[in-house]
Amino acid sequence: MTTEPAAREACGRLPAEHGDFVRQVLDRIGDKWSLLVVANLHDGAKRYSHLHELVEGISQRMLTLTLSQLTQDGLISRTAYAEVPPRVEYALTPLGETLLDSAVPLIRWASANYGTIRENRNQSHPESFRGLPGAAESH
Amino acid sequence: MTTEPAAREACGRLPAEHGDFVRQVLDRIGDKWSLLVVANLHDGAKRYSHLHELVEGISQRMLTLTLSQLTQDGLISRTAYAEVPPRVEYALTPLGETLLDSAVPLIRWASANYGTIRENRNQSHPESFRGLPGAAESH
Repeated sequence: MTTEPAAREACGRLPAEHGDFVRQVLDRIGDKWSLLVVANLHDGAKRYSHLHELVEGISQRMLTLTLSQLTQDGLISRTAYAEVPPRVEYALTPLGETLLDSAVPLIRWASANYGTIRENRNQSHPESFRGLPGAAESH
Repeated sequence: MTTEPAAREACGRLPAEHGDFVRQVLDRIGDKWSLLVVANLHDGAKRYSHLHELVEGISQRMLTLTLSQLTQDGLISRTAYAEVPPRVEYALTPLGETLLDSAVPLIRWASANYGTIRENRNQSHPESFRGLPGAAESH
């Protein structure tokens, strides 16, 4: 960083190595599906089939991969119950709960500001409106 | 959602339509580069060339595209100064500032927990350690 230290200190919102951490958090959750899976576990353990319904648009292959990576990272737990038919449930670990808690402000921000952003974008380039969730012509 | 209303209300961390909003926020910032550009504007306006240095690994084409989208969305402003040579600076708008503020907890979470995650992953699958930032064998 070539920014003056004074300006950096005046801000103080981000750790000095914020660039690395942003990259790291995006390496973890910026694959889109990870955060969607974590958010959909916010209200308790879920079976694979239920998650597949909740996380709209995810393929079975990608859901399996995402669950496996989140489990390896210690963000979710996988519990197999010896029942007939066998039952497997996924849930947030305490670490996963802290990830979700930290993501909530961002999700709330999106909830509060998405309309404004869509309006801004619509005013700059009406044609780019297409495909944004909520747009009349989408889907 | 097929979850029982009681469980949903007990949690209350997320708006009812959180699935949509997570998707929306990821549509906006989950392209990885948008959040990196926003985070790198946290301490003030920057020129294109400076941003290109700060956002490691971004191509000129992707930086140009990202800046253009963020400007259209009203998250950053573009100011051209009539100087010789001409100077163009990008800065967060008030809306962009609120996005950054909402992303700070997530960035701080990554800062605090990335070591743990790397350790967890290393224990499950040492070979998947490769390529994670900070791993001895990366790059």
